Amino acid sequence: MSDLRIAVLGVGMMGADHVARITSRIAGARVAVVNDYLAEKAEQVAAVVPGCRAIGDPLDAIADPDVDAVVLATPGPTHEKQLLACLEHGKPVMCEKPLTTDVETSLEIVKREAELGRTLIQVGFMRRFDHEYAELKALLDAGGLGQPLVMHCAHRNPTVPPGFDSSMIVKDSLVHEVDVTRFLLDEEIASVQVLCPTPNPGGPPGLQDPQIAIFRTASGKHVDVEVFVATGVAYEVRTEVVGEKGSAMIGLDVGLVRKTVQGTWGGQSTPSFRERFGQAYDSEIQRWVDAVRRGADTGVYIDGPGAWDGYAAAAVCEAGVTSLMSGRPVDVQMVDRASVWGGGL
Amino acid sequence: MSDLRIAVLGVGMMGADHVARITSRIAGARVAVVNDYLAEKAEQVAAVVPGCRAIGDPLDAIADPDVDAVVLATPGPTHEKQLLACLEHGKPVMCEKPLTTDVETSLEIVKREAELGRTLIQVGFMRRFDHEYAELKALLDAGGLGQPLVMHCAHRNPTVPPGFDSSMIVKDSLVHEVDVTRFLLDEEIASVQVLCPTPNPGGPPGLQDPQIAIFRTASGKHVDVEVFVATGVAYEVRTEVVGEKGSAMIGLDVGLVRKTVQGTWGGQSTPSFRERFGQAYDSEIQRWVDAVRRGADTGVYIDGPGAWDGYAAAAVCEAGVTSLMSGRPVDVQMVDRASVWGGGL
Amino acid sequence: MSDLRIAVLGVGMMGADHVARITSRIAGARVAVVNDYLAEKAEQVAAVVPGCRAIGDPLDAIADPDVDAVVLATPGPTHEKQLLACLEHGKPVMCEKPLTTDVETSLEIVKREAELGRTLIQVGFMRRFDHEYAELKALLDAGGLGQPLVMHCAHRNPTVPPGFDSSMIVKDSLVHEVDVTRFLLDEEIASVQVLCPTPNPGGPPGLQDPQIAIFRTASGKHVDVEVFVATGVAYEVRTEVVGEKGSAMIGLDVGLVRKTVQGTWGGQSTPSFRERFGQAYDSEIQRWVDAVRRGADTGVYIDGPGAWDGYAAAAVCEAGVTSLMSGRPVDVQMVDRASVWGGGL
Amino acid sequence: MSDLRIAVLGVGMMGADHVARITSRIAGARVAVVNDYLAEKAEQVAAVVPGCRAIGDPLDAIADPDVDAVVLATPGPTHEKQLLACLEHGKPVMCEKPLTTDVETSLEIVKREAELGRTLIQVGFMRRFDHEYAELKALLDAGGLGQPLVMHCAHRNPTVPPGFDSSMIVKDSLVHEVDVTRFLLDEEIASVQVLCPTPNPGGPPGLQDPQIAIFRTASGKHVDVEVFVATGVAYEVRTEVVGEKGSAMIGLDVGLVRKTVQGTWGGQSTPSFRERFGQAYDSEIQRWVDAVRRGADTGVYIDGPGAWDGYAAAAVCEAGVTSLMSGRPVDVQMVDRASVWGGGL
Repeated sequence: MSDLRIAVLGVGMMGADHVARITSRIAGARVAVVNDYLAEKAEQVAAVVPGCRAIGDPLDAIADPDVDAVVLATPGPTHEKQLLACLEHGKPVMCEKPLTTDVETSLEIVKREAELGRTLIQVGFMRRFDHEYAELKALLDAGGLGQPLVMHCAHRNPTVPPGFDSSMIVKDSLVHEVDVTRFLLDEEIASVQVLCPTPNPGGPPGLQDPQIAIFRTASGKHVDVEVFVATGVAYEVRTEVVGEKGSAMIGLDVGLVRKTVQGTWGGQSTPSFRERFGQAYDSEIQRWVDAVRRGADTGVYIDGPGAWDGYAAAAVCEAGVTSLMSGRPVDVQMVDRASVWGGGL
Repeated sequence: MSDLRIAVLGVGMMGADHVARITSRIAGARVAVVNDYLAEKAEQVAAVVPGCRAIGDPLDAIADPDVDAVVLATPGPTHEKQLLACLEHGKPVMCEKPLTTDVETSLEIVKREAELGRTLIQVGFMRRFDHEYAELKALLDAGGLGQPLVMHCAHRNPTVPPGFDSSMIVKDSLVHEVDVTRFLLDEEIASVQVLCPTPNPGGPPGLQDPQIAIFRTASGKHVDVEVFVATGVAYEVRTEVVGEKGSAMIGLDVGLVRKTVQGTWGGQSTPSFRERFGQAYDSEIQRWVDAVRRGADTGVYIDGPGAWDGYAAAAVCEAGVTSLMSGRPVDVQMVDRASVWGGGL
Repeated sequence: MSDLRIAVLGVGMMGADHVARITSRIAGARVAVVNDYLAEKAEQVAAVVPGCRAIGDPLDAIADPDVDAVVLATPGPTHEKQLLACLEHGKPVMCEKPLTTDVETSLEIVKREAELGRTLIQVGFMRRFDHEYAELKALLDAGGLGQPLVMHCAHRNPTVPPGFDSSMIVKDSLVHEVDVTRFLLDEEIASVQVLCPTPNPGGPPGLQDPQIAIFRTASGKHVDVEVFVATGVAYEVRTEVVGEKGSAMIGLDVGLVRKTVQGTWGGQSTPSFRERFGQAYDSEIQRWVDAVRRGADTGVYIDGPGAWDGYAAAAVCEAGVTSLMSGRPVDVQMVDRASVWGGGL
Repeated sequence: MSDLRIAVLGVGMMGADHVARITSRIAGARVAVVNDYLAEKAEQVAAVVPGCRAIGDPLDAIADPDVDAVVLATPGPTHEKQLLACLEHGKPVMCEKPLTTDVETSLEIVKREAELGRTLIQVGFMRRFDHEYAELKALLDAGGLGQPLVMHCAHRNPTVPPGFDSSMIVKDSLVHEVDVTRFLLDEEIASVQVLCPTPNPGGPPGLQDPQIAIFRTASGKHVDVEVFVATGVAYEVRTEVVGEKGSAMIGLDVGLVRKTVQGTWGGQSTPSFRERFGQAYDSEIQRWVDAVRRGADTGVYIDGPGAWDGYAAAAVCEAGVTSLMSGRPVDVQMVDRASVWGGGL
């Protein structure tokens, strides 16, 4: 099957990240078209991505016959029109949050998609793909905590850009916890209360930061969220679910930590090297592929340990096996590297 | 640039993993050829990978003009001949450990590659690509521990396959710590001693397990390694480096933990959402691309949150902003989902 | 100075604990008198504590000229009268919570003590003496987190006794967090809100459990507390303070963990063996003292390592010093234990 | 029973600690006599301990009829003679390590005690009384790890006093791990090897630091110990036992962490407040007793929360119960503190 040809609309920080991601780390897809309201920026991006064009009008980009699917990283206010165009052309679209900037137009989009009878729109709540959230969800689905009862969340950013106001803390930051709540608890949020403690005196003037949000779900579960967007400290998101049969917390720098009715705390050990080093294998191969593709230019076809490292390992292991037999220290015998490679490499 | 066409030689567990990896998660490459000494197995793999052929003879696969590079996942004893063929044809090769099965032939390979003057051979010591090892290496290179002095390693597997003997613990397991030592300390190992404590009575009969290996490096640093391959517990690798200015440990289920001369223990917080959720973004996009590519068949073009989730988030946030103003609980207003989507989806 | 003669009033679980504590682990005090509304129980306790009498009337016990100070572990409703008696006789009193069972009588006690101009009454909020809370308080006082802004607490018990009702969750459990809040933030609580999520279906029928309490302090700081008294899991109390310059959490099974504006997480290492093993030294000496005091009866005057252990250590160290010189393994030379001690001991 | 009258011989750092400990934190004992080869120092200590005399000759102190038991904190070379005197007078003695300074005299002491047929001598290996070591020992004794197979120890000090030489690392530091090994594994050490890696260039000149000791026990178990006494970092002792059924580590700033054959890592949760706050209760009462004893002089008979704190807690809880009924925020009603206490206290 040929690669999916994607149009990325908006190539600011988030959109540019997506272009780099699709180009360098995603199998089965390539960026065929980019668009930005700053035409020059789009041209610059297109110039460095093989086989990629810039198109000046976002709706043209969506309609382009050589575009199979769309990534929307444009400002929120433009989403409605662009999403409708995607639906009209039957183009699948991955839309960064928010869907649209208000409830009415969001509902309108939902209705249009429903009329088509096809789910073409995905929204960029990426936490559902994080391994810790996924692990917590799996634990809940498997009944590992029994019925969830209470959830505590913290959402902390070190800083916010200039102009970030108190309601953006709700719409841009808290919104992630809204989705986390709905995802983990599998029910809608019925009411919201936002409390405003004394603001951080060292924070941006006029900003109500931190805020405490309290959700009550349809079935009566309690969720509280500390949103603190200018801590000056670090990026930190944390979720704890307290259920009938214990509790579990993620975001503690230690993976998922669970408390059980058996009176233990802790986590799951890695069953095998595949789970432990899966990411390493992926990186190893991706970096090797990249090095080989650059090799004709560089003369170096590796990006990692080479034959000398294989030889050195063999020499040490041979000495090791000898010592295994005798129990005594054994010197490792190796030729001098320079005698093989000369001054080169 | 067109995709790198790779021949994967050997499609047992490790080779099959590499085929799946290159096909589904690696950008810029595809598996063009597979080979296995069990011809039928290679045929089966080729049948499910788009654009992939099986070739019966490994040397023919290496020589094939439609192969740009080779992944070697064949048994160790065949490596020498296959690596020489790769060098002869100037094909870059990613060779699973060991390079070859003895020191002499390993050195021979090193010399042949040196004669070519190009580094074509990479060896599969994948730990160098693991983020914890990479972080520890970066800390050492930055002088964060001062001069490293002592290193402690543990390498534990839950089980080994039948037929795994005492010298394989050295050659197949300890070999990883050999490379970790050389990688982290940036010097050769000068002597090795393998100690044999009372074996685990519950382990495979006749196997000297655990073993304790002691390395002394060229400059006199001490490294000890516990290799225990049939613990019955879990997969666990751990490395602690003790240096002039503190120590650091990885493999503790908590990321890199460092002790400093300032008298603190702990780790580095995540500076931003990009580091924290980089993996989530990659997975999100990869799964979305896969869903879109399947969409013509399935009618579902998403694999994640949809428009309804975007609408629900908007409704909650709108209530949240209202509460932010009033401080009071605000009910969330949402239409009934069934009223939009009917009985479907 | 002679030992403080203490009357312990109420020898239920908590009072009996105090009797054992004062008798076995507290220097400079002894239990001279015990009292309980079950006279027989007091007699039983008095019988096993050297130099201790039972007195039938609590007010007589307080007034007794051979009582220097009082520990009150009686039911809450009796506290008012007993505290007033202590004040009247000028006897220092350590009063288990609550001070009294309502605000009016509590204020009355405060006023009476103020009239005396001496602080005779201490209340049993023991968390202030826990090393983690003390460490957190010290960090706050030293300005390590800057101005505290938000505080999150969790208070979880595995079970509650029969008859424990919803308002007791406030008065008996939440009350600890009330004191923790006032202690750590050094200001009064201005308003309280208690939220009632869907109760744990597996909990005691009719009990509103968990409860979520929200405190707003005089200066506007936010504190939330999850009180969940029948989790079925374990005893768990946790406090996180989020301030201008970072955050710190205790109760995580890992000591105080702090996040700093330098972007690190972690804790303080132990500076010396005195901090690390202070408890061990105390236990060692207390157990040795106890063994020696029992020695005339038992013939054994130790409760710990003996002379043989000292000899064995000397033998191993002597071999170690020899090996230090030679670098080679050295056999340890020891006589056979039975040759010294025969069949005995 | 009257208090045990103890003679503390040697009031340097360790001995002075013991005097303070027995005087302030140990029930059932008091320091009756002190001695030091610096007579003035002993006099100074005696002057501040109620009922304590200085005696100039250590053997006189041991023989004194008003001494029931002896704590030996004198220099090692004097131990032999002093221990023999204790045995001669039948006085129980708690002897700081070492027993004596060589194997021969240690054995002589063992033999003399054996001839008496009473165990009068305890040796100050205080780690056996540390709660982490005790917990690990209990886990081993309960078979929680199956048969122990391998043990890894690290013993790190930030600094050593001037004059500390390489063999003292064995005799003064490693000796603790000798006892830990014998205690945890319940068997003798059969051979020792001390390895000398490149010394820490920043350490004391001429000192072989770090050292690596390798013990082989009578039954063939392997123990390795890193002893690193001038790390410049912190005090850190760590022990990991690897057994047939999993492993357990202490000294990681997180309590005992265990890996099990069930594939989990973690620890035991605290079952109840008694385990969690036992230390807090002890400290609370000890500090209260001390305050009351000082009260006649100071006019303050508490060292902790007072009646006002009890009143404040009552006021908050009353508001809490009101909110529990209504679900709404309730203001806390309290009188002004100054209205009660005036300007005082």
